[in-house]
Amino acid sequence: MFAPDYLVKYINSAINKIAYPEEPKGLYEPIKYALDGAGKRLRPLLTLATCDVLGGDIDAAKNQAIGVEMFHNFTLLHDDVMDKADMRRGKATVHRQWNESTAILSGDAMLTLASQYMAKGDGTKTWDVLTLFNQTAMEVYQGQQYDMDFEHRYDVSVEEYIEMIRLKTAVLLGCACKLGAIMAGAFDSERNAFYKYGVKLGLAFQLKDDYLDTYGDPEVFGKNIGGDILNDKKTWLLISALAEDETDTVKALIGAEVEPEVKIAEIKAVYDRLDLGNRCQALMDQYAKEAVDALNTVGLSDKDLEFFRQMAQDAIARTH
Amino acid sequence: MFAPDYLVKYINSAINKIAYPEEPKGLYEPIKYALDGAGKRLRPLLTLATCDVLGGDIDAAKNQAIGVEMFHNFTLLHDDVMDKADMRRGKATVHRQWNESTAILSGDAMLTLASQYMAKGDGTKTWDVLTLFNQTAMEVYQGQQYDMDFEHRYDVSVEEYIEMIRLKTAVLLGCACKLGAIMAGAFDSERNAFYKYGVKLGLAFQLKDDYLDTYGDPEVFGKNIGGDILNDKKTWLLISALAEDETDTVKALIGAEVEPEVKIAEIKAVYDRLDLGNRCQALMDQYAKEAVDALNTVGLSDKDLEFFRQMAQDAIARTH
Repeated sequence: MFAPDYLVKYINSAINKIAYPEEPKGLYEPIKYALDGAGKRLRPLLTLATCDVLGGDIDAAKNQAIGVEMFHNFTLLHDDVMDKADMRRGKATVHRQWNESTAILSGDAMLTLASQYMAKGDGTKTWDVLTLFNQTAMEVYQGQQYDMDFEHRYDVSVEEYIEMIRLKTAVLLGCACKLGAIMAGAFDSERNAFYKYGVKLGLAFQLKDDYLDTYGDPEVFGKNIGGDILNDKKTWLLISALAEDETDTVKALIGAEVEPEVKIAEIKAVYDRLDLGNRCQALMDQYAKEAVDALNTVGLSDKDLEFFRQMAQDAIARTH
Repeated sequence: MFAPDYLVKYINSAINKIAYPEEPKGLYEPIKYALDGAGKRLRPLLTLATCDVLGGDIDAAKNQAIGVEMFHNFTLLHDDVMDKADMRRGKATVHRQWNESTAILSGDAMLTLASQYMAKGDGTKTWDVLTLFNQTAMEVYQGQQYDMDFEHRYDVSVEEYIEMIRLKTAVLLGCACKLGAIMAGAFDSERNAFYKYGVKLGLAFQLKDDYLDTYGDPEVFGKNIGGDILNDKKTWLLISALAEDETDTVKALIGAEVEPEVKIAEIKAVYDRLDLGNRCQALMDQYAKEAVDALNTVGLSDKDLEFFRQMAQDAIARTH
């Protein structure tokens, strides 16, 4: 992922310097473990970069950058319990390394720690920061709930799917950007432009996740291709296929007792017949373009715009 | 429980009027279900009563009263998942009525909703309210972690036990009182006196819970007597017995394959030999007295003090 080295070092250093109480170890060690991972630090990078290009001192946004990464990792801890996921970024998930109670309780503590980080710094901005943060958190939970609801539904529309990923994934990227804008003391119009950038970037990012799981290069993807298909995961591809496939081939294959390779091949054949791979690519291209276009009104220099262009470019060009 | 009717009606009405979004139902219905229970509303009552006697308008503390009850119920949802508890206040727990994921996610939403309620109202008080609330939340998690740690330990000291219940239970009652004091615009000395009252009340309350589970009247207690003994729960009684029983009778019975009635009778015999029932009663009496004494410096009228005296009296005199 493209990201200026100094910002990556800055946020990693800030996260490594967090001083947790010594005791109880069972509460704080899982938090360190979770934040220690090889995460992309995408959200705090957006916070710092936005603050930077809008003329703010990145130190002024440091706590909010930590807070947004803390919040993101809290959602991962709890999502991994809900999904019964064993691995995260090449390590055992917290509930596997310790147990479920630990993942729940340490996750709760991370949410409160995130609130504490959000409330730090220039007091005149606290209200705006907390209003945005709490509203975003509620939307993320709503998105997670819709995602779980979709597991039991076969009539999810593409519009509903986009709204779900907007809530579950994209608004937190919008929030990350807007936090940087708030801490830079930016105008409402600038805050909103960056919020829109983050949301559109998040939509592009999630669609690329969906795309790679089916159309990625097995050599570089890092996971087995077709995992989403085997798990009947409601991705943009599957939902579009369910909506358009008049032969009901896909529907018949969901939950069916079929050899994995056969299931992947047959569903992929439907995707190809409906040209879904290319259409997914076109849609994420559109979102990436809309992300960058959202910043047009801000009047950034080409140099300042470069980070955000590269982020959008990378979201859709990445291979894993 | 003693509590002026108008305050109980006030808080129940405020909680019933909370306007949740229509969708997603799977996120908000469990929250309504959890808050709809026959809870004592102890914490919001403390908030409102404290605000009232310190000359504040109770409307000014309404959102903080809702917030503290929302937070308390969030901890119950997650604790019930961790404890695999089936019932709560005569109803199925949220994770039994729905499922674990629902209890985790709706609980998360309740924590964020609690933060939102805390931040409402007079902006000049927001900083004090949030600092107290977040600090208290962290302490509650620490207490829950110690409680879980104690399950695997046989050398817990009485001091450690008191510190655990202070964190897990008592500080939230202190926080509830102090929130009322903050919203009333009270002096620091008044805020701190009420915080101390709440903490001591909480200690008395928890010791009474421990006491009733072994020494309660089966006719009025509502649960079977001896449940804590059968579950090897580390209560004040068990921890004191483990520390003082030189025959190691209690230690030998923990986890042993013995008839329930025999186990209860034998452990209770040790408690009686060590006079633990009376000593537990004496300790909670002392905490209840310290609670009321903490308010001496505030100079309340006898009429205003009456609610807090009654609360402390009820905490130790209750039979269920």
